[in-house]
Amino acid sequence: MAHALSLGRRGLGRCWPNPAVGCVIVNQGRVVGRGWTQPGGRPHAEPVALAAAGTLARGATAYVTLEPCAHHGQTPPCAEALIAAGVSRVVAPLTDSDPRVAGKGFAMLRAAGVEVTTGVLADQAADDHAGFFLRVEQGRPWLTLKLAMSLDGRIATATGESQWITGPRSRRAVHGLRATHDAVLVGGGTARADDPSLTVRDLGVAQQPVRVVVSRFLDLPLMGNLARTAKDIPVWICHGPDASDQSQQAWKELGARLIPCQLDGGRVDPAAVLQALGEAGLTRVFCEGGGQLAASLLAADLVDELHVFTAGMALGAEGHPGLGALGVEHLNEAPRFEPVDLIPVGPDVRHVWRRVSQNRLV
Amino acid sequence: MAHALSLGRRGLGRCWPNPAVGCVIVNQGRVVGRGWTQPGGRPHAEPVALAAAGTLARGATAYVTLEPCAHHGQTPPCAEALIAAGVSRVVAPLTDSDPRVAGKGFAMLRAAGVEVTTGVLADQAADDHAGFFLRVEQGRPWLTLKLAMSLDGRIATATGESQWITGPRSRRAVHGLRATHDAVLVGGGTARADDPSLTVRDLGVAQQPVRVVVSRFLDLPLMGNLARTAKDIPVWICHGPDASDQSQQAWKELGARLIPCQLDGGRVDPAAVLQALGEAGLTRVFCEGGGQLAASLLAADLVDELHVFTAGMALGAEGHPGLGALGVEHLNEAPRFEPVDLIPVGPDVRHVWRRVSQNRLV
Ligand SMILES: NC(=O)c1ccc[n+]([C@@H]2O[C@H](COP(=O)([O-])OP(=O)(O)OC[C@H]3O[C@@H](n4cnc5c(N)ncnc54)[C@H](OP(=O)(O)O)[C@@H]3O)[C@@H](O)[C@H]2O)c1
Ligand SMILES: NC(=O)c1ccc[n+]([C@@H]2O[C@H](COP(=O)([O-])OP(=O)(O)OC[C@H]3O[C@@H](n4cnc5c(N)ncnc54)[C@H](OP(=O)(O)O)[C@@H]3O)[C@@H](O)[C@H]2O)c1
Repeated sequence: MAHALSLGRRGLGRCWPNPAVGCVIVNQGRVVGRGWTQPGGRPHAEPVALAAAGTLARGATAYVTLEPCAHHGQTPPCAEALIAAGVSRVVAPLTDSDPRVAGKGFAMLRAAGVEVTTGVLADQAADDHAGFFLRVEQGRPWLTLKLAMSLDGRIATATGESQWITGPRSRRAVHGLRATHDAVLVGGGTARADDPSLTVRDLGVAQQPVRVVVSRFLDLPLMGNLARTAKDIPVWICHGPDASDQSQQAWKELGARLIPCQLDGGRVDPAAVLQALGEAGLTRVFCEGGGQLAASLLAADLVDELHVFTAGMALGAEGHPGLGALGVEHLNEAPRFEPVDLIPVGPDVRHVWRRVSQNRLV
Repeated sequence: MAHALSLGRRGLGRCWPNPAVGCVIVNQGRVVGRGWTQPGGRPHAEPVALAAAGTLARGATAYVTLEPCAHHGQTPPCAEALIAAGVSRVVAPLTDSDPRVAGKGFAMLRAAGVEVTTGVLADQAADDHAGFFLRVEQGRPWLTLKLAMSLDGRIATATGESQWITGPRSRRAVHGLRATHDAVLVGGGTARADDPSLTVRDLGVAQQPVRVVVSRFLDLPLMGNLARTAKDIPVWICHGPDASDQSQQAWKELGARLIPCQLDGGRVDPAAVLQALGEAGLTRVFCEGGGQLAASLLAADLVDELHVFTAGMALGAEGHPGLGALGVEHLNEAPRFEPVDLIPVGPDVRHVWRRVSQNRLV
């Protein structure tokens, strides 16, 4: 199952709106087939592994990281394929909470005489499928937020110097995070100040994540990196209802997808942004800032996981803060996280935190 | 030697101005004596271990964490004691840089026919004796700075609420840090705002660290915890040359030791403070803030080690910053540190950093 989980993770960021599933078929102690959800979400992991196993699937055990699907979508149900191949036992950690599956896959297998075992490495599988489940259950994707700051929480000196605070190894780790998410999200301020391209570089990635920018009036540079490459790599812009027709038209022509969202307190409502991104099929979104957008996501309690990259330097109170205003007056209103990982990254430190008291994972 | 080092560490914070040395005497594979520098710095580790070994010291090997002393001070030289006891071999990681020793201890041993081996676990020994060496070589103690902050570098909400940001396990770790330092140092702001007692609690410590406060005009509460207990546990106040005679008199009567220091830019010069504390015999000083004093120590490049306790909450840009203004305009002027340890502490994370490019330790 650990092997199946690691195969499944290869699909993270590449197979939305489907879950990134892994499958290993074992016949008499020998691995005879392996598969994972393919880019774009099809074929699913099971048919890939079954095709590799061929007739050796007969009488074998299939380790699948999520309940096999039971519904006729664009592919026939995987439960049916496992039965047809003569698999005698299926081991899967979790029931799929997609209402079209939700136990029906396991029932179909059992009805056909296939032995079903569940619960194995369920916590790890729940982690891997957290984005998929969140979208199915709440309509929004999993949100990972990155903050890269000095020891004292600053991202630039008083004079605005900010390159580079964290080192090349941290920046490479950020590219790794981009690659395992369906989309990268930034605020309009970052798009204007940094003219970022937000692509995954130097990691041999075939499919790039969608680039999402939040900007109420679509007030974004029409000649920048995002504009220039929008036809090749998706750019989606979450804008307010009052963005001018003219700029909407300009961005459409550049190839961007425009997603109107309601406002909240004069800014694009971050909850509406995530609902819209979930609706569009995204299961895992990686927000890279800036500080204002990060603050509104935190204030709305929408951040599931936080990756803080801390550089070994102090910039002092006159530096620019890495996180904007949150409106927290009392400590018991502060968004809270618990540490899940601590990793030295060259001269920097990476600490990973998970939201406290979230539904599924804590 | 590892055992001797761990014995030596028991003296940290308790035997200034002397180094915290450990000694293990081994005869034919059996430990026959163990010792460490006793509270107040005397007796030294070697005579304690020799006394335990008795006649079994004859022909034995002594593992000592620093070159045995060679000078007649208030005790006879340890090198002489080792020779007199008939020890045949001494293993020590480092030469003592105290000019009164500085190789003379080893020379004395060799002249008497004792075999001397050096270099064993020298890096660890250099860490343990860093404060002692720094004082001998530069006249100032080792400075450890603690910062306890939210994920975004804040120590209070906009309304001033600050208790508690870090959890009880972090606070206990802070008491552990107090216990292994000769003194605890805070700024006048913290003394006024928090009325702290700055003692080590719940750790069964017999000797409390000296409490040091920096305040230019001695503008400190005469009825607070420090004032009340100054007769029992030392309180030293580093003040400017212009503190009134009246407040000097009042603090003297309360039992405090007054240490006049020169000013720098209108504030007590942090370098002068550390020189004065070194002069007074301190080898390891633990600064607990507040943000202004921490900032001036960092700006003066006087912070050797930094312990950051990060709590899993965000307070936002309107919260109080944990570190004051540093006057850093360009990134290359920022004080820099490299990570040496990462420790989860219940709901918090502790990261330990060492100054980059310091003399001895990097
Ligand atoms: N060190 C790092 O890791 C890092 C990462 C990213 C950025 N940065 C730096 O951060 C700076 C930009 O950060 P920033 O805080 O000014 O801008 P930001 O958070 O990237 O963007 C803020 C802008 O996003 C738009 N927006 C729409 N809805 C919003 C909402 N609900 N909440 C917040 N913003 C919303 C607004 O622009 P509209 O008027 O267009 O709606 C707002 O001005 C740049 O200097 C960049 O270099 C650093
Ligand atoms: N979360 C934590 O870990 C933590 C730790 C400690 C404190 N705190 C909080 O921090 C706040 C106090 O911090 P603060 O920054 O205001 O005060 P601070 O750093 O404790 O003290 C600053 C004061 O120290 C004196 N001083 C003398 N020489 C100085 C120098 N070279 N540099 C800096 N200060 C010098 C000055 O007072 P004089 O006019 O008397 O000279 C100055 O006003 C309190 O609210 C406290 O609760 C939090």
